[in-house]
Amino acid sequence: MSLNEFDVIKKYFTRSSTQCSVEKSVGDDCAILTPSPSKHLVMSMDTLVAGRHFPESASPYDIAMRALCTSVSDLAAMGAKPLWFTLGLTLPAVDEAWLQSFSDGLFSIADQYAMDLIGGDITQGALTITVQVHGELDRGQALCRDQAQVGDHVFVTGSLGDGAAALAMLQQQLSVSSEQADYLHARFYSPLPQIAAGLELVGIANAAIDISDGLLSDAQHIANASKVSIELQLESLPYQPLLADIEQQRMRQWMLSGGDDYQLLFTVSNKQLSAVQSLIDQGLLIATQIGTVCTGEPQVRCYFQGEYQPQQQSGYQHFAS
Amino acid sequence: MSLNEFDVIKKYFTRSSTQCSVEKSVGDDCAILTPSPSKHLVMSMDTLVAGRHFPESASPYDIAMRALCTSVSDLAAMGAKPLWFTLGLTLPAVDEAWLQSFSDGLFSIADQYAMDLIGGDITQGALTITVQVHGELDRGQALCRDQAQVGDHVFVTGSLGDGAAALAMLQQQLSVSSEQADYLHARFYSPLPQIAAGLELVGIANAAIDISDGLLSDAQHIANASKVSIELQLESLPYQPLLADIEQQRMRQWMLSGGDDYQLLFTVSNKQLSAVQSLIDQGLLIATQIGTVCTGEPQVRCYFQGEYQPQQQSGYQHFAS
Repeated sequence: MSLNEFDVIKKYFTRSSTQCSVEKSVGDDCAILTPSPSKHLVMSMDTLVAGRHFPESASPYDIAMRALCTSVSDLAAMGAKPLWFTLGLTLPAVDEAWLQSFSDGLFSIADQYAMDLIGGDITQGALTITVQVHGELDRGQALCRDQAQVGDHVFVTGSLGDGAAALAMLQQQLSVSSEQADYLHARFYSPLPQIAAGLELVGIANAAIDISDGLLSDAQHIANASKVSIELQLESLPYQPLLADIEQQRMRQWMLSGGDDYQLLFTVSNKQLSAVQSLIDQGLLIATQIGTVCTGEPQVRCYFQGEYQPQQQSGYQHFAS
Repeated sequence: MSLNEFDVIKKYFTRSSTQCSVEKSVGDDCAILTPSPSKHLVMSMDTLVAGRHFPESASPYDIAMRALCTSVSDLAAMGAKPLWFTLGLTLPAVDEAWLQSFSDGLFSIADQYAMDLIGGDITQGALTITVQVHGELDRGQALCRDQAQVGDHVFVTGSLGDGAAALAMLQQQLSVSSEQADYLHARFYSPLPQIAAGLELVGIANAAIDISDGLLSDAQHIANASKVSIELQLESLPYQPLLADIEQQRMRQWMLSGGDDYQLLFTVSNKQLSAVQSLIDQGLLIATQIGTVCTGEPQVRCYFQGEYQPQQQSGYQHFAS
C-alpha cells in the first residue's frame, strides 16, 4: 500500500467547492460552512454495511451511488434542497482502482444534486460507508412525519416494489428479462431520491416520509408520529408496468413490505388536493392516491376492493428478531 | 433479540434537546436545526473501528467517551463552540447492557460540552462508531491550519505523550504504578478536548490543529498548509510529571510521534505573545512554547539544546505502508 490516508483524501475525494456556502471543505480539522440565515438546516446520517445493505460483490461505483442516493432521499422526505455531504469510509485495504471507481460513482450522484463533499474520515476495517447529508429549507416548512391530519389523502410517488424486486433478482430469487434486469439494477444502485417532488410538495403536503423500510412500516411511522390511523387501498398501489409479469401476490408483498423504494409517502388535505392534481397534470409530480388518514389508534389498515385485509407488518428492520 | 432499531433509538438514544437551535432531533427523516445567523457552522466526522482505534475488550462506556471526545477535539482545534452531534453505530448484535453503558458514557461527555445528539443510524455489522460533531464560531474567526506566519511562536497545550503511553500500557508494553494506570486509562478513554483553550485562542492564535496523529505529523500539516517551516525545541516538550520515570528516549518518541494526545498545537505572532502569557497567568490556558515558525520548505525540524536532530516522521497514519 503506497498511499496513506491523507494521500487518498487528496487524490480521490478533494474537489473544489461549487457553492459559496462552503468556506472550507476537506483538509482542515473541520469543514467551515455559512448556512443561509433565514433557513433551517436539516441533516441525516446513514450507514451501509457490505453484505447487509449491498452485496459484497457490488462494484464500487454502484456502492457509492447507492450510499449517497439513499441518504439524499432523507432530504427529499423533508422537502429540503441538498447542500453538502460528509463521508465516513471504512476499507479493508487501499485499492486505487476501487477508490477511483468509488469516487467516480460518488461524484456522479453529487453532481446530479449539486452537492459538495465537505469532509469525512477514512479508516481501515470491514467495508462500511457512512454518509451524512445536509440540506436547507425555509423555516417552518419542513415536511414532517407528525403532521398528518384526519381526512388527509395519502399519496405515494412513482412505483412501489422495485427495491424488493431488485434485491430478489440480485439474490437469484427472481428470473427477469434483460430489460427488467437493467431497470432493477439501476433502481437498486441508483434509486431516485425524490428531491424535486419533495420541493414541489412544500406548502402542499401535511406529512411525508421516504419509503426505505417498506410502505406498511413507513406508513406506520406517520401513523405513530401523527397519532392517526391510515387506511390503504391495495388495488391502488402503483407498480412499474415493466414488472407486470411478476406473480401478483409476490409483487403485492414487495410493494407493502419490501422497502428500499425511496419513493415519498405523503398526506394532503382536501383543500390542497387540487394543487397536487395540478402538479401531476403539469408533469411536475408522478404520484398516486393510495389511501386516507382516519381517526383511531395509530395503525395501518389495508383494504382490497373495500374488504379489510389483515397484514403482517414486516418492513425491513435491522436487528428484527 | 427483542429490540428493533427503532426501539433501541427510542430507549437509549433519545433525550429532550437542551438547545433552542434544535427544532427536531432524533425521530424524523432528518434533524432540523436553526444555526445562528451571524456565525459559521463547522463540522467534523470521525470513525472508530474496534481493534484499531480501541481494544476489543474496552468497556462500552469507555468506547463511547473516547468516540465523542476525539471528535469534539476537532471543534476545539477550530476555536468552535460545540452544538450538536450525530452517531452512526454499527453493532454485531443488540445487547441491552452494552447499549445502556454505551449511551451512559456518550451522554456523560455530551453533557460536559452541552451538546445534543440530533440523529444518526444503527446498523448491524463489525463494531464501528462514526461521530459527526457540529459547532459554531464567529465568521472569519476560525483557527485554521493555513494561517501560521513566519516569526510566529509555536505552543502546545497540556502535556504530550499521554496517548502513546496509555496505548503502550493497554498493550502491556509499559509497566506502570496504579496511580499512573488510572491517569493513563482516563487520558485514553476520555482525552480532554481543549474546547476552553480553543475558545480563548480565537483572535489570538494564527493557526491551530489538534494533535491526533502525533506532534511531528500534525506540525507538518500546519507547515504544508501554511507553506512555512517549523522548528521545535525538544527540551521544551511538556510531559506529565506523573510520567517522569518513563525512560527518556521512549517518552520523547511518544511525545513526537505517538498521537492521540488531543492537545492543541498553535502558533502566535510576536504581537499576541503577551495575550497568551496573560491567559496562562490567569489560569485560563495551560500551554508551553516549544518552537518557532520559519521561512523555508514546508518541513518540521527538531533541535535539542541548539543542535539539529534529524527525525523520522512516523505519526499515526491509517494505511501507512
